[in-house]
Order: sequence, then C-alpha cells, then structure tokens
Amino acid sequence: MAVRTIEWREGCVVMLDQRLLPTREVYRVYRDHREVARAIKDMVIRGAPAIGVAAAMGIALGARSLKPGGDLAREFDRLCRTFAATRPTAVNLFWAIDRMRRVFVRNQHRSLDTLRTLLEREALAVHDEDVATNRRLGTHGAALLEDGATVLTHCNAGALATAGYGTALGVIRAAREAGKRIQVIACETRPFLQGARLTAWELKKDRIPVTLVTDNMAGHLMQRGRVSAVIVGADRVAANGDVANKIGTYGHAVLAHRHAIPFYVAAPLSTVDLGCPRGDRIPIEERPGREVTHVFDRQIAPSGIKVVNPAFDVTPSELVTAIITERGVALQPLGRSLARLVRGAGAAAPVAPAKPARKSEPRRERRR
Amino acid sequence: MAVRTIEWREGCVVMLDQRLLPTREVYRVYRDHREVARAIKDMVIRGAPAIGVAAAMGIALGARSLKPGGDLAREFDRLCRTFAATRPTAVNLFWAIDRMRRVFVRNQHRSLDTLRTLLEREALAVHDEDVATNRRLGTHGAALLEDGATVLTHCNAGALATAGYGTALGVIRAAREAGKRIQVIACETRPFLQGARLTAWELKKDRIPVTLVTDNMAGHLMQRGRVSAVIVGADRVAANGDVANKIGTYGHAVLAHRHAIPFYVAAPLSTVDLGCPRGDRIPIEERPGREVTHVFDRQIAPSGIKVVNPAFDVTPSELVTAIITERGVALQPLGRSLARLVRGAGAAAPVAPAKPARKSEPRRERRR
Repeated sequence: MAVRTIEWREGCVVMLDQRLLPTREVYRVYRDHREVARAIKDMVIRGAPAIGVAAAMGIALGARSLKPGGDLAREFDRLCRTFAATRPTAVNLFWAIDRMRRVFVRNQHRSLDTLRTLLEREALAVHDEDVATNRRLGTHGAALLEDGATVLTHCNAGALATAGYGTALGVIRAAREAGKRIQVIACETRPFLQGARLTAWELKKDRIPVTLVTDNMAGHLMQRGRVSAVIVGADRVAANGDVANKIGTYGHAVLAHRHAIPFYVAAPLSTVDLGCPRGDRIPIEERPGREVTHVFDRQIAPSGIKVVNPAFDVTPSELVTAIITERGVALQPLGRSLARLVRGAGAAAPVAPAKPARKSEPRRERRR
Repeated sequence: MAVRTIEWREGCVVMLDQRLLPTREVYRVYRDHREVARAIKDMVIRGAPAIGVAAAMGIALGARSLKPGGDLAREFDRLCRTFAATRPTAVNLFWAIDRMRRVFVRNQHRSLDTLRTLLEREALAVHDEDVATNRRLGTHGAALLEDGATVLTHCNAGALATAGYGTALGVIRAAREAGKRIQVIACETRPFLQGARLTAWELKKDRIPVTLVTDNMAGHLMQRGRVSAVIVGADRVAANGDVANKIGTYGHAVLAHRHAIPFYVAAPLSTVDLGCPRGDRIPIEERPGREVTHVFDRQIAPSGIKVVNPAFDVTPSELVTAIITERGVALQPLGRSLARLVRGAGAAAPVAPAKPARKSEPRRERRR
C-alpha cells in the first residue's frame, strides 16, 4: 500500500505524523504506551478506525511493561483508561479497547509472556481486520457509483484514517479498481484541514483525480450540478442511523438533500453504537480554540477572540441515503437495516448507482 | 469612527490594507489611479460598497492627470474601464463608475480644473452617502432584532466593506445603539478569511461581543438552537431577489431555512441590479487557486493540487426572508418589494423581530 498509517514493528508502534502532511512525510516510533496515547490526543493519528488500531497497539505496548506479581487487572485497567481518555467521540476507540480487555480477561491466568503475546496478536488482528473490512466495505459501496461520477467528500475517511485503504475513500478506490472513472472533490475541512492536507495528499499519491475546495463551496458546486454523490466516514453511528462525523458533515448533508444528491456514509460496523439510541446522545468533543485562530503557527484572527471549536456534528438519519458497511449497504429505515447487519442478517437490497455529475451549464436549481 | 476604511486626503486615496489585518494595521497612500485599481484587484480593499467608493476616488485621482487638449472623453473612458476590469461581481463598482461618468458627461465642456473638482466632489459624495445609507439601513434592520439575539454573519459586511458603519454589521451596530444586547457569531469565511481577519477585528474594536467559528460549524450551531438570525451583505441582488454574496452564503441560507431561522440580506439599493433578472445571470469571479492552497504564505495542500475558487455564490430569492435597504425592508415576494423600494415607493410593512437564540439544552431538530 502506498500509504502506511500505522504499523507494529519490532515491539514499537510506528505512525506517520499526519500533522506534518502534506509538506513533510515523517514517521514517529513510539516505545511507550503513554506516547501513543498522547499521539492520539494530539492528532498525530486521527480517524475513528485508525484511532481504534492505535489504541489496541498502544495497549499491547503498555502490556510489555506490566510487572509480574502486581495487581495485574488493576494495572491493565489503568492502561485501558489512559486510552479511553484520549478522544471522546470515536466509538471504535472504545470498541478496540473492549477487544483488548476481553483478551486480557480470558487469559489473565496465563503467564505474563503469553498474555503479552496474545494482546499483541489481538492488536495486529484489529489492524489487519480493519484493512479487510474496508476492502469489503469498498466493494459494497463501489456498486453505488456509476462510471464518471464525481464524489464530494469531507475530512479524511481514507487510508490515513484507518489501518489502510479507507472507508469513504475505500469506496472510491474499489470503484476505480472496478474500472470506473471516478473523480473526487475534497473539502478542505477546517479547522484541522484534513481534507486539504490528508485526503488531497493520499488521493494524489494514488493518482486518483482530486479537486480541492473550501468547505463552503460545496453548496455552490451542488447547485451547479457538479456533484454526483457525497460519501463521508463516521466517528459514531447511533442505533437509529444518526451519524456523528467531522464538523461540517451536517451542512453537506442538508445541501445534498436539497439538491437530491445521494448522501452516503461509509463506516465499518464497529462504528455503529447500538447502545446509543440517537445522535443527540453522542458526546461532541470540544477542541482547543487555537485550531480555529491559527493555521499551523500563523495567527489568522485577532488576539484574545472568543472561539468555539466542536470537532464533530450530528447528521440526522433522515438525511442519510444509505450507510455502507462491510456486510452490505444499510438503507432506510436505517435503524432496522443497521440492526440486521450487526446481527449478521446479510446485506440489504441493491440500490441504483449515482449518476455522473451534469457537465452542462449552470441551471436554475430544483424548486422544492 | 473607530475604523477608517478609505479616505480622500490631500489629493491622495488612503486605504487601510485589509490583507494585513488582524495582526497589522497599515494604511496605504495612493497617488496614482492605477495603484488604486491594483489595490481593488489585490483586495487591499474589498466589500461591494467600499469597492464602489474606491473606484470613484480612483477615477477622481485619475482625472488629475488628464491632459488638456487631448481626446478627453476617450481618456476618461479608458480611466473608467481600468476600474470596471478590477472585480466583476460587485455591482456597486459599476454603479459608482456610472455616477462618475455622468458627472463627466454633464461637465465635459467646462474647464479641466472645474471638471476635476466636480469629479472629486462626486467621489466624496459617494463616500459620505454610503455612510449615511448604512446608518439608515441599520435603523430599518435593527427593528428586526430582539434584545438578546445572536446573529450569525459571514464574510465582512462591516465598516471595512463600506465607507463606514457597514451593512450587515451596521444593522448590528444600530440595534446595539438602540440598547439591544446583540452578540455575533462570525464565520471565518475561507478562503480569504474576511470573517476571522476583518469582522472579528472590527467588532472587537467596537466592543461588540463576537465568537469566531469556522464556516462549517454554522449548521451545528443552528441545530443546537444557538443562532437567532443570519444577516449577510450582498455583492449583487438580481431583480427577482436572488443574492450573489461571498462563497458560503448559500450554504448558510439553506441551513437557516431548514431550521426556520430568519435569513436577512443587508444591502444598499445600489447593490440591486434591476437589469439582471435572476441570480444565474450574475458573473461569478473565479479567483487564484493559491488562496485555497495557502493561508497567508503557509502551504496547506499538496503541491500541484487542482483547485477551484469561486469567490461568490447565489442564494435564491426563496431562501431570503427579507432584504434590508436604506429605504426600508423588502419582504417576499422580493422582486416586487425591491422594485417598489428602488422606485422610492416607501418601506414595506414591519415584521416581527428575531427572538433570542434558545439557551436551552441541545434538542432534536425540527422535522420537516
């Protein structure tokens, strides 16, 4: 794979430092689990599935320094809580921690060496399964895109947001592997600029045609008929199909709805939180104001200005055309379809693929 | 006035260089009309009414170097065309040039000195009338805001976008002068960051409470009940009430509509182009891609990435609650109301003021 987001290498966690992209490609080597937790918090790595992998690897790393004879269960719990405290919104984080916990609980009577090996193996499984999941998800999603489609995406739900291949960008990769000519409009995604820095970078690296725009251009492009479909990732999907994703997703969904453009969410089932009935129960992380007032180190706003910086928003289920998962595509009503998929009851019925964007002259928009 | 955007001083045009705000307050002195035209193009000054004033002053400045005995009409025409070529979307530019042309045509038989004096006087009139217009517009608009309202605005339709006082921000200033506690949410307005750099700066300077957000946070804030009204300026209003304004305005209008939040446009009647039947006839300026790929001089996207950068979008009339002008508030149907106001047929009926934003807990959004 062209993009190596996170790897387990000789007892270390190696991450591409995403804060330095797109101008510098720097890999960080972590030997201490606290450094891994700090890297998640500081967004060296981000994207819900990638955060899950990083937490699993971080816990495996932390297990190496568990002392024999101590209160192992308590030490391990402290380790897990270090990771649970890094980012509040991504449910994959808690899902990955739970997987590691279960391995621990099942095997805590065994030797510490065996336990460490099993935890390491589980972390690698979380990584490898994520790539496999994304490839399956991609195949299901690719069927929704017609040859020639232009897909608008927000933030980065790509190889960089996962162990590899990506969710939203995985759908695009799979469609292209199936021979379809797909092009991408990447919204820059303020304040952290994941679209400009990461999506544009990884698509360019993979030679997938991409046009960069500011977030507030999406409506204009839809109005001019230049968007065939929107595909985004998710940080958490509630049981009713409400979707928490990067701030700005909700605005794109409302605009897509107005223009009758399909709005797809690509997310592994590990992102679905059946314990959370509705989106308004999902905690929304508030991040430092400096992300808004500064771009890298350049100050763009008056000193001392008041800022709010919610990292995510919630798109209500009714605005989501379908949720693309590794077990198939969940259609409306999303709550029922998701529950079926989580139970393993198989894929939903196929839907008609999104047509290419009109290349014609600007027209009067559809009255509703 | 705390903010001095543009002045005529001893035969020079003096402008605050808005590209350096908010960290540096630098005034440029122009002695040559070509420098003024370049300043408009390079966005030293921006905002439709301010561009009109700058063009008028630039033409007055250019008239000082007209040679007696030459083909005066041709020289003057060339001068006007220099300014007409600076920015294509703002109709006030063409309106101001027309005013200067009319003074020229009416007085071209008189001495060159008299002609120059009359042109200078006309440019000063364009400036002073703009401030007076904004104050009247502000008074009409202030009636639409209740005590305690939170107003979301986009770009900068403030003192910095006009000869002074502002249009959208003029409404807020007038409401506060009337004793109402109004606070502002300023959207940063990518790519040129007029909200972060200019609106936040001038409101802070005037001690008006302001919170800065990225453009893509507007939907989330509306969903959480934290916005009472949206007020924006306009670069051109078509005869049917379609509004061309800074890119991103359309998205805010669609979101406001979904959340039943009033969406107001504050614009002097000089912004209304009755010769333009509908918004899709308004030319949309495409600006350099570097504005998207760089913030100041910091590169934020991969080198060589494809970019589009439309500077404006068009909000269809149906999404505009009312247009606030110096002669009163145009209500739906906007086409008819605007025509009445342009003819001087008086203000429209009063409308109920926007209520304060709910301070309550996030709620489930209104289903439609």
